Amino acid sequence: MKHVDFWFEFGSTYSYLSAMRLDAVAGAHGVATTWKPFLLGPIFKSFGWETSPFEIYKQKGAYMWRDMERRAAKYGLPFQRLDKASGQIFPQNGVAAARLALAGLKSTWGKDFCRAVYHAEFAEGRDISGQELLFALARAAGADQNEIDAAFSDETKAALRAQTERAISLGLFGAPSFVAGDELFWGDDRLEDAVIFAKEMDPAAP
Amino acid sequence: MKHVDFWFEFGSTYSYLSAMRLDAVAGAHGVATTWKPFLLGPIFKSFGWETSPFEIYKQKGAYMWRDMERRAAKYGLPFQRLDKASGQIFPQNGVAAARLALAGLKSTWGKDFCRAVYHAEFAEGRDISGQELLFALARAAGADQNEIDAAFSDETKAALRAQTERAISLGLFGAPSFVAGDELFWGDDRLEDAVIFAKEMDPAAP
Repeated sequence: MKHVDFWFEFGSTYSYLSAMRLDAVAGAHGVATTWKPFLLGPIFKSFGWETSPFEIYKQKGAYMWRDMERRAAKYGLPFQRLDKASGQIFPQNGVAAARLALAGLKSTWGKDFCRAVYHAEFAEGRDISGQELLFALARAAGADQNEIDAAFSDETKAALRAQTERAISLGLFGAPSFVAGDELFWGDDRLEDAVIFAKEMDPAAP
Repeated sequence: MKHVDFWFEFGSTYSYLSAMRLDAVAGAHGVATTWKPFLLGPIFKSFGWETSPFEIYKQKGAYMWRDMERRAAKYGLPFQRLDKASGQIFPQNGVAAARLALAGLKSTWGKDFCRAVYHAEFAEGRDISGQELLFALARAAGADQNEIDAAFSDETKAALRAQTERAISLGLFGAPSFVAGDELFWGDDRLEDAVIFAKEMDPAAP
């Protein structure tokens, strides 16, 4: 079946839009999706950035929050700005969420868990770095304790590092990104283009 | 009449797409456009960038050229990558073109001149910094010699500096950008959103 890889980072605002939209859009076009959590931190560090570019370049940050409000409204998705002055956190640390996502995506509850994490973060403004919230979301999505434990095994930690290395080798520099065949698409605004590219791809292509 | 301001820089690849598309899209929605050339250089310098981010962050640059190929194809616009290995120039110096554009936009030939410059740069791969090419394009668009001379007056130079200062005060950080009322939209992918926002704006709004 034709398919597109969805590369996302839990700290990324625009990845929230794509996580909520992708499977509906892809399904409507008969395209399967593979979800690939990774970490932007190592990539940003290679650019000399110690935090999100939306923090470093204040104008880009101010624009992003307003743009996110408009895009979320357009898609009918709840959204709130993360307001550091009121104790909310941005960018958030998505490492634990990404480890759980990797475990969940090997099982049945991965996508529901990812969407629940994004909802907690960007619809409810919660801190998604803590295990209490994450474990509750994982259990609600269908995880059992063995799977939750497996998310924090050395094997899963290594798998997340390997997935981030793979992202770098593919030339990824931001999230969300989509890969269909040899084509890279960056940004929630390219979601439809990526799905349609996958749909129209020559079946003999990679 | 409802209208949108179009802020563009002649060195910007995505501004080429918007310059070629904007007036058709806006016209179809009954929205007028005001074209505002400005310089990204001073803004990029304030970010600590001495050249285009597509040069500084190589992965972003590689992606941009491929994305531009796809977007240009989607819109039926001719496009070629500027290949420095073959002596082509990127990013290009658009200062002289912006001065002529300011002069032309006060007259009748501004938009045709802007589109001709972008075509020379991104469809033909030519260097748009030189006066010989620019004067020929201005004349072909309808400029007379007095108008061309006026483009290099102290008054026009000051006007371009003032326009760039205005861009900074509006929070612009890239090109193309669109402003409708108090809303800023960044990127060719937001062109339609900006036009539709302008169309649906309360007539009593700013």
